[in-house]
Amino acid sequence: MPAESQMKPTMTIQGVKSRRWRDRIVEMAQHTRQAADVLGQASTDAKNATLTRMARLLETRADEIVAANTRDIEIATKRGIESRLLERLRFDHDKVTARVNALRAIAHLPDPLAEEETVFTGDGLTVKKRRVPIGVIGMIYEARPHVTVNAGALCVKAGNAVLLKGGSEALRCNRLLGALWQEALEGAGLPASAIQVIASSDRRVVRRLLALDELVDLIIPRGGPQLIRAVAGGTRIPVIKHSQGICHVYVDAQADPGKACAIVLDSKTYAPSVCNATETVLVHRDIAPAFLPGLGEALRAAGVEVRGCERTWALLPWAVPATEGDWDTEHLDLVLGVRIVDTLDEALAHIARYGSRHTDAIVSEDSDCVERFVREVDSGVVLSNASTMFNDGSRLGMGAEIGISADKIHARGPMGLRELTCQKWVIEGDGHVFAQPARTAQC
Amino acid sequence: MPAESQMKPTMTIQGVKSRRWRDRIVEMAQHTRQAADVLGQASTDAKNATLTRMARLLETRADEIVAANTRDIEIATKRGIESRLLERLRFDHDKVTARVNALRAIAHLPDPLAEEETVFTGDGLTVKKRRVPIGVIGMIYEARPHVTVNAGALCVKAGNAVLLKGGSEALRCNRLLGALWQEALEGAGLPASAIQVIASSDRRVVRRLLALDELVDLIIPRGGPQLIRAVAGGTRIPVIKHSQGICHVYVDAQADPGKACAIVLDSKTYAPSVCNATETVLVHRDIAPAFLPGLGEALRAAGVEVRGCERTWALLPWAVPATEGDWDTEHLDLVLGVRIVDTLDEALAHIARYGSRHTDAIVSEDSDCVERFVREVDSGVVLSNASTMFNDGSRLGMGAEIGISADKIHARGPMGLRELTCQKWVIEGDGHVFAQPARTAQC
Repeated sequence: MPAESQMKPTMTIQGVKSRRWRDRIVEMAQHTRQAADVLGQASTDAKNATLTRMARLLETRADEIVAANTRDIEIATKRGIESRLLERLRFDHDKVTARVNALRAIAHLPDPLAEEETVFTGDGLTVKKRRVPIGVIGMIYEARPHVTVNAGALCVKAGNAVLLKGGSEALRCNRLLGALWQEALEGAGLPASAIQVIASSDRRVVRRLLALDELVDLIIPRGGPQLIRAVAGGTRIPVIKHSQGICHVYVDAQADPGKACAIVLDSKTYAPSVCNATETVLVHRDIAPAFLPGLGEALRAAGVEVRGCERTWALLPWAVPATEGDWDTEHLDLVLGVRIVDTLDEALAHIARYGSRHTDAIVSEDSDCVERFVREVDSGVVLSNASTMFNDGSRLGMGAEIGISADKIHARGPMGLRELTCQKWVIEGDGHVFAQPARTAQC
Repeated sequence: MPAESQMKPTMTIQGVKSRRWRDRIVEMAQHTRQAADVLGQASTDAKNATLTRMARLLETRADEIVAANTRDIEIATKRGIESRLLERLRFDHDKVTARVNALRAIAHLPDPLAEEETVFTGDGLTVKKRRVPIGVIGMIYEARPHVTVNAGALCVKAGNAVLLKGGSEALRCNRLLGALWQEALEGAGLPASAIQVIASSDRRVVRRLLALDELVDLIIPRGGPQLIRAVAGGTRIPVIKHSQGICHVYVDAQADPGKACAIVLDSKTYAPSVCNATETVLVHRDIAPAFLPGLGEALRAAGVEVRGCERTWALLPWAVPATEGDWDTEHLDLVLGVRIVDTLDEALAHIARYGSRHTDAIVSEDSDCVERFVREVDSGVVLSNASTMFNDGSRLGMGAEIGISADKIHARGPMGLRELTCQKWVIEGDGHVFAQPARTAQC
C-alpha cells in the first residue's frame, strides 16, 4: 500500500489531465484502482463518515440537485424521451429525502469486511475465510440518478472504489452528485477518486471502459436487454447482469381471495416502471370464476389495462385479447397479462417458458403448493403471499440495493453490501509441507 | 419439471442425432439443460450413488483407462508435446486410485443444497436464502484427464449438469471417462446427459459452445493465459477464470530457518507443474546471509535451477542471474527466482507488481508481520508458515476442487461443492403489500 504522501495525487479529480476521453477514462480508472487499495484498508468509521456527510450534502444542496434534474428532464422531454423512462429519470425532493434515509441506514449496517469464519482445521492447520472487497467496480446504467447515490454508498461501505457511468439523460444531475460524493470522501479523509462519475454522453467511453480488464474487477450493467447484451458480449471483465424482470403472481386454487387481490394490485400498480413489477397473473381455474371479476374491477379502477387469455374474456368481457408476445414482454407500464391455468404444473411451465428468472410469487394457503412453487421456480427471488415489490433491498434489511442480479453466479436477486464483497482463504500452519520429512531432510 | 416419461429421450447420449458438430453441440447442450432440471431436484442418495458407482467403475476398468491414456501420450509425444504438458496429461494407476479416493470423499461430504438460512424477519415477513445449483456448467480445460473425474463429481453432487471440453491431447481417455460417467449416472437412475464429454478436437466447437448463452449458465476455463483470454473475450455467459499462478514465498527476518527451508523446497518441488507451485522466493536481507546458503544447497540437491537477483549471487555464486522477465513468468518447472528484499513493504510491493493474485505465503514467527501480509496481499489464498501446496481442495476438506478461481467474484481460490452453487431468496408473507390499505381497498 502506498504511503499517505504518495496517495496525494489521486486525492483530487484534478489529477486527471488528459483532454481526450480515450485517455481520460484510463487515467480515471488508474486513480480508482489506487483509491480501491486505500478503501480496502479504510476504517469503518471513515467509510460511515463518508455516507453521513453525503446524506447531509443531499439535504443542504437538495434544491440544486432537483434543479439539475429538472434541467435534465426538460432536455430529455424536448428530445422525446418515452414517458416510462421519464419516470425513472425523475429525482424530486421526495426521492432525494428517500436517499438521505438510505444513506443513514447503510451507515448503520455492520461493516461486511469484519467477517471471518474458520472453515476447516486438521493436522495443526487452521483454514479461514475472510471477507474482502472486490476492488474496482464499473457501473453502467440508464437514467436513474438515485443509482448514483446507492451505488456509491454500497461500494464505499464494502471497501470498493467505483466508476459510475449513468445515462446521458441524467448528465447534469449525476455530475453534481459525483461532485458531492467527492466532497464527502475528502471530508472523511478518503481519496476522492474512490467514486467517480463518468460524465460523458459519448458511447465510445463505455467501450473503452470495458477494455480495461487490468484495472476493473467487475462490471455491473443495469438496463434493458440491448444494453446488457452489448456489455456482456464486449468485455473480458466479469459481469453481473441486472436485466429485465418478467415477473408473475400465481393465484392458486387455495388462495385467500382478499390477499390475492391486494397482492396482484400492489405488484402491478405500486411502481409499474421498476423491474420487479408484475407483468402476468396466472389464475387457477377453480378460483377464477369467484376471484377474477372482483380483481378485474379493482384493476380497472386503478387504470390497469388487462390483456387476457381466451378463458379470461369469458369472465372479463372488457379485457383486451392477449397475444403470444404479451407473455414475454416487460411492459413497465399499467398493462397486465392474465391467464387462467388448469394446474400448478401449468403455471410452473408458463413461468419457466416466459419468465426471466427474476421475481415470482405464489398466493396460496396450501403449504405443499407453496413449497413446490418455491422449490421449482428458478428465480432469484421467490415469494409466497407477498407482493413482488418486496424484492427491494430497503425492505430486506439491506438499506438499499445496487441492483437486482439476473445472473446465477456470485449473487442472485438484490445485491447489497455483502454481495459487493468476496472471500479470501487464510491458511495458518506451523511449518506445514506436503512431502514426507525425508524429502526436506536437507534443510 | 417434465414428467419422467418425457425425460426418457435425454436419458441416453444416443438421443444426439445431428451429424454436423455445429448442430450436435447445440443438441448436447439442450439435453444437458433438461438434465440440469432433474439434477437440481435429485435426492442426495441418487447423487452419491452416481459417485460411488463411478469410483467402482474406475477401479474395475482401470487398465482400460490407463491404456487409453497411454495411447493419448504416445500420439502427443509423436506430435512433440512439451514435457510439462506431458506430465499434466499422465493418468496412471496411482492417479486413477487418487480419483477413486476423491470420489468417495466427495460422496461423504454433506449435500450443499440442504442449506437454508433466515436472513431477515420483520413486520411478519420471513426472508430466507436457500442454496440452489447454478444449472448448466461448461468446463473448458487443457489435457488433465483427472479434471474429467473431479468436475463431473463436484457438478453432480452440487446438483448441476456439465459439458466437459478437455484438451484434444486427452481425447481417448476423456471419451472413455465420459462413457463411464454416463454408465454411473444411469445406474443411479439419473439422466446420462448430466455429464457429457465433448470429444472433438475441432476448435470451432468451443466457439459454438460459448455462443449458447440461453443454455449454459457458467463457463469455467482452466488453462494458460491465451486460453483464458480467448474464452473470457468470446462469450456473454458468465466466466470464472482459472488462470496461471505466479506464487511467492516470503521468508521474513523473523522466520524459523528450518520451517522456511522445508516450505520453500516443498512449494517448488512437490509438484512443479501445478498452478500453486511457487515461482519466486523473497528473502528479508537480515536473514539472507544465514539462511540462503543452506536453502541453496537443498534446492541444488533437488535439481532446482535458481535465478537470483544481484544480492543473491553474492551468497549463491552459482545462481543464474534473474532477468526482469523471470519475476512474472510461470515456469511450471524446477526453476525458482530468488530475490533479497530490504523490508516487508518491498516484498508486498513485489507481489503486488509481479504476482497473479493466486497463492502467496509468508514464513515468520512475528504475528504482526503475518497479519499485515495476510491483510495486504490481495490473493485468493494467503498462507502463513505453510507450503503453497496447501491450496488444494483435498487438504481443505473439499474432497477435490474443480479448479482454483483467479477471479474476484463468486469464489476465489479453490472451488468445491459450495462454490458450484448459488443462493435464491425465499420471502414468506401473509398478504404483505407495499401500498397503504386504502390503495387496495377495492379488493
